[in-house]
Amino acid sequence: MLPDRSFFDRLADAAKAETMPRFRMGGSVINKLEGGFDPVTEADRSAEAAIRTLIENTFPGHGILGEEYGNVGVDREHVWVIDPIDGTRAFISGLPVWGTLIGLYRNGNAVMGLMDQPFTGERYFADGEKSVYRGPGGEKVLSTRSCETLSDAVLFTTSPHLYAGELRERFEALQARVRLFRYGCDCYAFALLASGHVDLVIECGLKPYDVGGLIPLIEQAGGVITTWQGGPAEMGGEIIAAGSPELHERALEMLRI
Amino acid sequence: MLPDRSFFDRLADAAKAETMPRFRMGGSVINKLEGGFDPVTEADRSAEAAIRTLIENTFPGHGILGEEYGNVGVDREHVWVIDPIDGTRAFISGLPVWGTLIGLYRNGNAVMGLMDQPFTGERYFADGEKSVYRGPGGEKVLSTRSCETLSDAVLFTTSPHLYAGELRERFEALQARVRLFRYGCDCYAFALLASGHVDLVIECGLKPYDVGGLIPLIEQAGGVITTWQGGPAEMGGEIIAAGSPELHERALEMLRI
Repeated sequence: MLPDRSFFDRLADAAKAETMPRFRMGGSVINKLEGGFDPVTEADRSAEAAIRTLIENTFPGHGILGEEYGNVGVDREHVWVIDPIDGTRAFISGLPVWGTLIGLYRNGNAVMGLMDQPFTGERYFADGEKSVYRGPGGEKVLSTRSCETLSDAVLFTTSPHLYAGELRERFEALQARVRLFRYGCDCYAFALLASGHVDLVIECGLKPYDVGGLIPLIEQAGGVITTWQGGPAEMGGEIIAAGSPELHERALEMLRI
Repeated sequence: MLPDRSFFDRLADAAKAETMPRFRMGGSVINKLEGGFDPVTEADRSAEAAIRTLIENTFPGHGILGEEYGNVGVDREHVWVIDPIDGTRAFISGLPVWGTLIGLYRNGNAVMGLMDQPFTGERYFADGEKSVYRGPGGEKVLSTRSCETLSDAVLFTTSPHLYAGELRERFEALQARVRLFRYGCDCYAFALLASGHVDLVIECGLKPYDVGGLIPLIEQAGGVITTWQGGPAEMGGEIIAAGSPELHERALEMLRI
């Protein structure tokens, strides 16, 4: 038995009940890594706990890979990949471009996925065949746009400071070629790409849970998402998403090492 | 006769009626400057026209300084300072961190101001004495937070690429001292500062209409907003906003040339 949209909605609603009361409330921030700044709020932990409880009760045979509470049965046929708050820096700054990410992998391939932004009331869901948006403007099936050249493309990345060495050189060469680039949106940028508003999202150093819930949203809206080498994105790393196969190929020519 | 909150609401509603139907709809983009990328949508022009019509009909003796249609009577006692869409790049990328800015200057001082983000349903208004927020969570009086040291501060700027030469050196030295920095929010960052979610917003090369509507929001919530020299912010330029006088002074020590 596979989950349906209503089950994903239950997961997103359970997470929202933990995140929203703590958004813009100055909740406690815990530094996960000694010395580094890696903010994780109570919201992050309690939202993941709520999601895991629902999954464990409903699909006890499935594995879970989550940001906050580690991995269970990640070699099973079905594995849930969870980031309760992607964009914790946005969350603690009061900026509504964070999201709850929930993906379902089958035999290592991301097949269903959800991104929820509860403050703006936007929910993106890929059901295995198509990507659907619900938000203030109603509901619609998503489709990426067909920008084919770098000089027409709008590019998002979380921060140019995340790239080092050769990755930085390659990213900056690409950035210099696009029409418009913007920084700082985490998962929200991928959702805008699935919606046909932006053309490229490029990131480095992603974990599987940073991208697992987003892969089906991109692919089932007509986009392409891979590593910078052109391989599967499911395990994270250096990731590129493009609205069209043509643009993906042009960007990959500049990023591939 | 001075305007009241309901008049500012009429202005914001008139702008919203022009911007929202064109947000995320792939509306036409006009390049204002030959060769440069300065996107201005139809939304920008029609929103400013709608605002100006209401002002001209209601306060014919007031001056107007606007982004799209030039200046009228800017030496009068009362002058309206209008940016119909601050953050046009966010607007054309589908990102809801742009805003409609409307300020009222009296003898050159910004005394009332409004920032409206119609997609998220958030409206920030400074009535001459206090700053008030209305949004999904209801209505509240705003207050900046009292972070006093750079090492505790959350800093926003639109893009590090906007700084050149000595401005860049000074900005980067300051950026290296703060707890957390983020890029890419235009007016929305100032609204988050007025709300007590972030501590510093630093920008360069602002026009009067980029900042006029925001000055009263910052000041009437307890914050400080000046040029990098510590002078009045009303004419734009290099601008710093801080949540507390102490933090403003510490940042100014590093930025002042």
